[in-house]
Amino acid sequence: MAKAVVLLSGGLDSTTCLAIAKSRGYQIYALSFDYGQKHSVELELARFNAGKFGAEEHRTVKLDREFFSSSSLTDSSKQVRKDSYDEKSIPDTYVPARNTIFLSYALAYAETIGADKIYIGVNSVDYSGYPDCRPEYIEAYRKMAELALKGSVEGKFKISIETPLISLKKAEIITTGKKLGVDYSKTVSCYEPVLGKACGHCDSCILRKKGFEASGYKDETVYV
Amino acid sequence: MAKAVVLLSGGLDSTTCLAIAKSRGYQIYALSFDYGQKHSVELELARFNAGKFGAEEHRTVKLDREFFSSSSLTDSSKQVRKDSYDEKSIPDTYVPARNTIFLSYALAYAETIGADKIYIGVNSVDYSGYPDCRPEYIEAYRKMAELALKGSVEGKFKISIETPLISLKKAEIITTGKKLGVDYSKTVSCYEPVLGKACGHCDSCILRKKGFEASGYKDETVYV
Repeated sequence: MAKAVVLLSGGLDSTTCLAIAKSRGYQIYALSFDYGQKHSVELELARFNAGKFGAEEHRTVKLDREFFSSSSLTDSSKQVRKDSYDEKSIPDTYVPARNTIFLSYALAYAETIGADKIYIGVNSVDYSGYPDCRPEYIEAYRKMAELALKGSVEGKFKISIETPLISLKKAEIITTGKKLGVDYSKTVSCYEPVLGKACGHCDSCILRKKGFEASGYKDETVYV
Repeated sequence: MAKAVVLLSGGLDSTTCLAIAKSRGYQIYALSFDYGQKHSVELELARFNAGKFGAEEHRTVKLDREFFSSSSLTDSSKQVRKDSYDEKSIPDTYVPARNTIFLSYALAYAETIGADKIYIGVNSVDYSGYPDCRPEYIEAYRKMAELALKGSVEGKFKISIETPLISLKKAEIITTGKKLGVDYSKTVSCYEPVLGKACGHCDSCILRKKGFEASGYKDETVYV
């Protein structure tokens, strides 16, 4: 049975991505990161969904928070922007080199366990404008990875970075996940939840709400 | 004063790289990693040299060892190969995605502090054959990094990965460092030192010995 590493934040997109990888028949090795995010409740939900979708292993890597402290997503003195979603600008929730670090751990993990697929739930349609979610970034990452790994240089395996959500609208992601059995009440998208409840006003909440409306599915998110 | 992030292992190459970055007038932000390497004595020497060359800051990141346990460099049950240096094969001291992870932290660090230079002491002449030390890998990494970072996407800065040693012979590296004041007795190259003394037989010891011989400088390394 072929193995896949799945980057799993515990949000709507990565959980859907997990369900897709599972439906394609892979043995799942899920990978999450604790980098000081305000919405760390997502890590508990990542664990829940890794279990639900039968992951062989689920690792949570604790990253040095100081590297990520310049973002409103991690710095408690900065408020995440509210009610001002703008698809053309990179918001202050941007975390420097986040996906680059996540994918780099996934590469090490993949080569160590012999997985030639890495699943990442990036999306460049209904998204927050982060540069490291775009197709051109992923393609450049893949090219770099091919030159980095012993296995690929020796021709033993070709690493593939799978981005099944990259050109889907949020409503299409939700529809896909629903068909694969994802329970979205067990995912969190909010950047700044209060006592486990979604704020309803950050970019991520706005995109999620609109996605549910357009999908026709009921949004079971509990808002403040 | 422009800032540079310097990847500093505490070995001969990275210490020379540090001295070069300093001589070019940069404010130095040094970055080291504890990933369970057998030669962790290098981390103490990294700290020493960061201080000696006046680094503004020196961070040592502790990485999750499990990701790197497949290498003879980290696994105490595997012996590093001895007296069998072969420049055409990738040895078992290879650590999956090591430079990719190191550079990814350097990217996050650089963007956070506003440094547009990252110095890495990779070398593809007298080296152990690791794929992530070659010029084509570094170039692919740079292209990926340009697409990853907010600052470069917005045109605010262009990240540059500086590899001043990449096409130098070991003897040339030593000569360069000597002129810049590097004390090589305060660097460690050995992959498997015994009580702080170099084994003299691993790939890294062999390259270092030959380099000193060819440079004409005295090799002050203490061997077992």
